[in-house]
Amino acid sequence: MTTNKTVRLGIIGMGNMGTSHAKNIIDGKIPNLELAAIADQNPERLEKFKDITHFSEGMDLIQSGTVDAVLVATPHYSHTTLGIASLEAGLHTLVEKPISVHKEDCERLIAAWKDEKLVFSAMFNQRTDPAYRKVKSLIESGELGSVERINWIITDWYRTENYYTSGGWRATWGGEGGGVLLNQCPHNLDLLQWIFGMPSKVTANCQFGRFHNIEVEDAVTAMLEYPNGATGVFITTTGEAPGTNRLEIACERGKIVVENGKLHFTRTEQLVSEHSKTATNGFQKPGVWNVEIPLPEGNGEQHNGILKNFTNAILEGEALIAPAGEGIHSVELANAMLFSAFEKSPVELPLDGAAYARVLKAKIENSTYVKPEIKGGKVEELSW
Amino acid sequence: MTTNKTVRLGIIGMGNMGTSHAKNIIDGKIPNLELAAIADQNPERLEKFKDITHFSEGMDLIQSGTVDAVLVATPHYSHTTLGIASLEAGLHTLVEKPISVHKEDCERLIAAWKDEKLVFSAMFNQRTDPAYRKVKSLIESGELGSVERINWIITDWYRTENYYTSGGWRATWGGEGGGVLLNQCPHNLDLLQWIFGMPSKVTANCQFGRFHNIEVEDAVTAMLEYPNGATGVFITTTGEAPGTNRLEIACERGKIVVENGKLHFTRTEQLVSEHSKTATNGFQKPGVWNVEIPLPEGNGEQHNGILKNFTNAILEGEALIAPAGEGIHSVELANAMLFSAFEKSPVELPLDGAAYARVLKAKIENSTYVKPEIKGGKVEELSW
Repeated sequence: MTTNKTVRLGIIGMGNMGTSHAKNIIDGKIPNLELAAIADQNPERLEKFKDITHFSEGMDLIQSGTVDAVLVATPHYSHTTLGIASLEAGLHTLVEKPISVHKEDCERLIAAWKDEKLVFSAMFNQRTDPAYRKVKSLIESGELGSVERINWIITDWYRTENYYTSGGWRATWGGEGGGVLLNQCPHNLDLLQWIFGMPSKVTANCQFGRFHNIEVEDAVTAMLEYPNGATGVFITTTGEAPGTNRLEIACERGKIVVENGKLHFTRTEQLVSEHSKTATNGFQKPGVWNVEIPLPEGNGEQHNGILKNFTNAILEGEALIAPAGEGIHSVELANAMLFSAFEKSPVELPLDGAAYARVLKAKIENSTYVKPEIKGGKVEELSW
Repeated sequence: MTTNKTVRLGIIGMGNMGTSHAKNIIDGKIPNLELAAIADQNPERLEKFKDITHFSEGMDLIQSGTVDAVLVATPHYSHTTLGIASLEAGLHTLVEKPISVHKEDCERLIAAWKDEKLVFSAMFNQRTDPAYRKVKSLIESGELGSVERINWIITDWYRTENYYTSGGWRATWGGEGGGVLLNQCPHNLDLLQWIFGMPSKVTANCQFGRFHNIEVEDAVTAMLEYPNGATGVFITTTGEAPGTNRLEIACERGKIVVENGKLHFTRTEQLVSEHSKTATNGFQKPGVWNVEIPLPEGNGEQHNGILKNFTNAILEGEALIAPAGEGIHSVELANAMLFSAFEKSPVELPLDGAAYARVLKAKIENSTYVKPEIKGGKVEELSW
């Protein structure tokens, strides 16, 4: 906790997300959070914020003494290096998702958090969505009994070819370290582990450049197995329109479906496991109630909710919604899916992080992929 | 084609299905089809039909000269032997699903069909369901463009413990040759191959006796890969209530969902593949129409539809809805899912039928499973 009543924040990386966060802070949407400095290697990106102290290098911002806290919003690989530097400089640190590209880097980043007085959080804004919060609380309360099966179809991450040609680093092993799993899905993978815990085994089919001219995965089907015997399926792609975002959960107390901002609960009058053992007819089913669980309008405070929580954690010791240490799990899931596809076999968790880092390094070194020339518009090159 | 105006049918196996078919025929629901004979090794099952010529052995019915056609409705393994005997006796033959337990037996059965004048059909009654017929015709017409992804959650096959103790042969390798894939799912697996063709690779997690005290699979998650790169997921279990029956199809022209007797089509205004290549914005999505495709009330003529079609095929040469030869595909899919689970690896199709038959034989020979004593009610033993 600082003694100041205001937290001075520095944002490193003024791309889409950094710029969006900066505007919200300048607009006063985050009480007690002040945008004190920004950094980007691309000077054009700093021009919109002339009145804010700025740096071309994130490391200079970190060392400048102008901020109490840092938000790292750069491309993926530098989350690790800048996050470590920020923590080592004694600054509160908020890292965009994914916290790192692979499990070993996550471990290095998390190991740098030695001072528990520093607030260390990750931008998992979807944890503020009331639907997912409700599902988590229903499970934790015991209302649903044990979870038996999960099916998450999250294929509404449609991106056009233009998206991938708009940035030279995009969708490359060297630039992003993966495709839909590393860029779009960290939120979903985080919610998956946050709500259901980690699986013990992952078997995945990843398709590389199936829908787009890219070298990384743009379509994934993964089977998950949990320690208690529960099963899961996670399906994602950037190649589908309109796509689907539907989370189905079968549990001892019936079924939950989260889709289109609604949470529908088909509640069995008896635990399914009990009914099955005691029914005197082979085809009988337990009675059910159709329950619509009301949710607040909208999808929660999202990014601003995480920024408020980060600020309040610094000023008042508020519990974090998304501690950065938990960010390793979504990375481990993404890595495990890719590893399973590379090796064409199931992957047991915990993942061997060193083995995965070696495979990823080889992908980068052996890459022969050449970004196609962009038609119209400029290529925005990787600036970190 | 026979010269008679009426087909004299013999039903072998008067369990649930055989009895149900017999009643429908006696009630006159199938024009020009006469129930001429029945057979069952259990005399109690024949008592309800005292006026019908009856036999204890199916082979005797086949040889009796009292029938033009045979419906084989016995437990699974004998579909092959009785089906072959019926065809070799020159009788039109309708086989309950699955046509055999494993691919090699299917091949033996199909090879016995040497006389093309004989009508040889399978009881895939769900092919009469208007929703699935419409999906198939939409795909065949080209309206949907190429199919990109399938997700079929078919988990509404709930069965209680009582169901499995009600028959000594039920849910054993020796009695049924499998669990939910062989008993409940042949319909869904048949529709899957009928509508989408056969995948080239299957990777499955089968759980044996997860929800019930049985030795065979009662929960399955399978990933499918198709020759054109399309992917599929097939999920089934007898352990869930209320369960789900939801078929989602992502295609170049948007998305189809079949659920609760409705067919919902979210149609993109442009083919997704074209839109992706031509859009000038990375996040733009194609416009969509929400289309409810009207379907007739109910789920089609089902079993009686197949019986009518079988009769008309014999009398008038009507094209079969479900030629028995196509029944090998659903068996091959079920076998491949089990084989993948046994071997803990993906299985390429076409399946090596001999290898699978060996593994299944070993399962039967090495079985140490003992059926639990039934509480109340009698155990109905395997009669074939």
